Amino acid sequence: MHPDTRVEFPGAGVLRLAAVLCLCAGAASAGAATTPAPDTVAAQLRDAAMAGHTIAYNWVSELTTRFGPRPAGSPNEQQAASWAAARFKAFGFENAHVETFPITAWVRGSESATLVAPSPQPLVVAALGESPPTPAGGLEGDVVVFPTLTELKAAAPGSLSGKIAMVAQRMVRMQDGSGYPAAVGARVDGPHEAAQRGAIAFLLRSVGTDSHRIAHTGTTAYTDGHVPVPAFALSAPDADQIERLVALGQSVRVHLFSGASYVNGAHSQNVIGEVRGRERPDEVVMLGAHLDSWDQGTGAIDDGTGTAIITAALKLIRDLPHRPRRTVRVVLFGSEEVGQPVDPGSAFGGHAYVASHRGELATHVLTSESDFGADRVYELALPQAVSDTTFAQTALRILGPIGVLAAPRPAGDAGTDVGPSVEAGVPAFTLSQDGTRYFDIHHTPDDTLDKIDRAQLDQNVAAWAALVWLAADSDVDFRAHPGGAAH
Amino acid sequence: MHPDTRVEFPGAGVLRLAAVLCLCAGAASAGAATTPAPDTVAAQLRDAAMAGHTIAYNWVSELTTRFGPRPAGSPNEQQAASWAAARFKAFGFENAHVETFPITAWVRGSESATLVAPSPQPLVVAALGESPPTPAGGLEGDVVVFPTLTELKAAAPGSLSGKIAMVAQRMVRMQDGSGYPAAVGARVDGPHEAAQRGAIAFLLRSVGTDSHRIAHTGTTAYTDGHVPVPAFALSAPDADQIERLVALGQSVRVHLFSGASYVNGAHSQNVIGEVRGRERPDEVVMLGAHLDSWDQGTGAIDDGTGTAIITAALKLIRDLPHRPRRTVRVVLFGSEEVGQPVDPGSAFGGHAYVASHRGELATHVLTSESDFGADRVYELALPQAVSDTTFAQTALRILGPIGVLAAPRPAGDAGTDVGPSVEAGVPAFTLSQDGTRYFDIHHTPDDTLDKIDRAQLDQNVAAWAALVWLAADSDVDFRAHPGGAAH
Repeated sequence: MHPDTRVEFPGAGVLRLAAVLCLCAGAASAGAATTPAPDTVAAQLRDAAMAGHTIAYNWVSELTTRFGPRPAGSPNEQQAASWAAARFKAFGFENAHVETFPITAWVRGSESATLVAPSPQPLVVAALGESPPTPAGGLEGDVVVFPTLTELKAAAPGSLSGKIAMVAQRMVRMQDGSGYPAAVGARVDGPHEAAQRGAIAFLLRSVGTDSHRIAHTGTTAYTDGHVPVPAFALSAPDADQIERLVALGQSVRVHLFSGASYVNGAHSQNVIGEVRGRERPDEVVMLGAHLDSWDQGTGAIDDGTGTAIITAALKLIRDLPHRPRRTVRVVLFGSEEVGQPVDPGSAFGGHAYVASHRGELATHVLTSESDFGADRVYELALPQAVSDTTFAQTALRILGPIGVLAAPRPAGDAGTDVGPSVEAGVPAFTLSQDGTRYFDIHHTPDDTLDKIDRAQLDQNVAAWAALVWLAADSDVDFRAHPGGAAH
Repeated sequence: MHPDTRVEFPGAGVLRLAAVLCLCAGAASAGAATTPAPDTVAAQLRDAAMAGHTIAYNWVSELTTRFGPRPAGSPNEQQAASWAAARFKAFGFENAHVETFPITAWVRGSESATLVAPSPQPLVVAALGESPPTPAGGLEGDVVVFPTLTELKAAAPGSLSGKIAMVAQRMVRMQDGSGYPAAVGARVDGPHEAAQRGAIAFLLRSVGTDSHRIAHTGTTAYTDGHVPVPAFALSAPDADQIERLVALGQSVRVHLFSGASYVNGAHSQNVIGEVRGRERPDEVVMLGAHLDSWDQGTGAIDDGTGTAIITAALKLIRDLPHRPRRTVRVVLFGSEEVGQPVDPGSAFGGHAYVASHRGELATHVLTSESDFGADRVYELALPQAVSDTTFAQTALRILGPIGVLAAPRPAGDAGTDVGPSVEAGVPAFTLSQDGTRYFDIHHTPDDTLDKIDRAQLDQNVAAWAALVWLAADSDVDFRAHPGGAAH
């Protein structure tokens, strides 16, 4: 446990919020039997969060300040998990504990890139996750630039022998983040496509939407259990520079060094806390976010804010004078970032959770995760089974005033961490966030506390607290039952 | 000479411009004797530049792409100077040549900073210019944070023994850049104030207005001919992080490494080109900018755009069917950045110019420099001697339509490079630029081509070309003559 876990949050905002809730809800409530109507409480939670509070911001501030980057398997990640569990207890959450699981950790080490010809200049790069190290003296080669992954895949076998392959594809800025899946294939498949054609290393224009000298790391696919060649993301201005040199007819030569390494026998962990339901405590609404982060920034928007949003939502619920009918559980997953390419997946927090809680999943009534920064929620998607019900109407009536629209489709993919639970049959909702600026920061050194917009963070907490209360204080069945009527 | 100096710019914009000018000016002009009125030509130059052209942008694109960073005394700076001189000749400029002068160069080398306690995390730093290296294994110490330089100066002698002193002062964003002189004192005087009190190193919150993981370098004062301790700028988010840790009651320990070195017997150079005057060729309007840059970015806005603006202005003038009465000279100065703290100054391009051209300075009728990025010109300041004259009225009538106001005061400081000429008595004007975002980028790795707004770059060229024509095609005396009437 971290020596400073007993430091308390500044309490002013919490006290103010408690006062608001007592004024509104306390008058009609002397016990569970007289709990106000769910929509009344949901609206109170929403308004209290929107009025501004300190729980979420203080959580992400302290998490990112005390522990900095939290790469999977690192002491920083482990100490952050101990801190979070202790803070859960201090918040009055029940069943607060840490569940560990084994992983192989990846450590970036030092790294550098230099454009050595035609004129020497430093390049800003970040090795992709699990990328192997270069030889100790680095490696050097001429760069062959491909506009997109498609052109790289069309290159002849052996045609890149001794070369450094580079894919220059640009990511498109989109509110819903849909530019990311359209671009990330080059990162995922580029290294092995390059290696198959003889390349000694792979370079990628960062999958991001900014134009700063910061590189966006991320995972890439394994071939036979490993990344085949050293692979790096270039900052956007560096990729521009190489493209312009090629357009001027120059031959571009680059030197790359990476001291990356692997740590066998490491471990990561999930942190759990909950508020037990007053009527159906075995029925669980499970909320996820991930506590680990990439190593260059401090994981503020990816995913410190996600952990802050779900924790703050649960804390607001915990501070009510009455419990919801069902249990609400938060899970702060470990090893979300670097564990991704392992298949079959046992290195994810999400897989570890399913492995440890398989017996409970049948009574997990609903789940979702927050892992897209802290800009405003603009859309709610519910499970198909409740799409046209009173529940959906009530939820949209409560969330509409804070700018949340109905999604045009039922909830699909709810995120990486709760993915294995959803695959196991747990119904999912999604609260889609504005991702317009998310990929300016995602997976970069720039993922730091100063990027958080506190008003939008509060709106996230409002949406989560209100919706989760509606689901947890109901007996709605969110599962699809073939042939059966929706509740 | 660089092997690719013979590559020509794409000519479409130039041809289009020439056509415009011929249509407007050519009809009334068959020779020098029938040159149109100066304000007519100035307005034509202004409008042609505002219509969009490629000279300035292509110049800065090619300069920053071919040569990348151009630190004083480096091969990149020298090759860029050779390229620029060859390009001047290709443009038809006269007297195009390079003038070298000796300097001691400073080379950054590799550098790193790590917050080692309470939780390890990488810090983004940049050694300040001329900062000495650390020992080979780096150095480590507890950090003592001072809000501003004032508190550091109030610390007792010996009170920082074995410590790393840090000044956390924030720079204020201002349109006219006045936040910079208000903050830069900590960078200039911090290292020796810290060293005097026993500190082993000095850290500074970057003198900048951004909040990215990029650090702003810059020069600092010498004590007995050198910077007394290793000194580094921290990125703003890293400075925030250290301040928050201290606020949480944590002891912050940092490890620093710098492999900086000095190169004795290096040289830098000024590049000169001109359009000779048709009536008074010995009278010179001298325009300056600097060709060297800091080493982390590619010197796009500092000062690639300055060299582009004055070069493009001269090229527009050169392409007219008639010459101005007086000579217009551009000087691309070397060693502006790293040479600053040397006193008495012999390592500046600006001082070298005065030393080589002292005999000419009496007939340098007017000067200015462009060294503040490429955002729009909003204000014109003229020498006191012409403040209330027809010349000033005409200049403002021509520049007003592109958003240039009259400065409330006559021109004062015109910049570092032309400073020694101004001190020697050459009258100066200033075309003040919008600096709102300049210090987001200044002296950082982020000083790259993508930061340039082409429309605003064109407006700069328009203002310079028009004003310079008015001055050069006149016989106005810009010097103050005690007791004498202004022209």
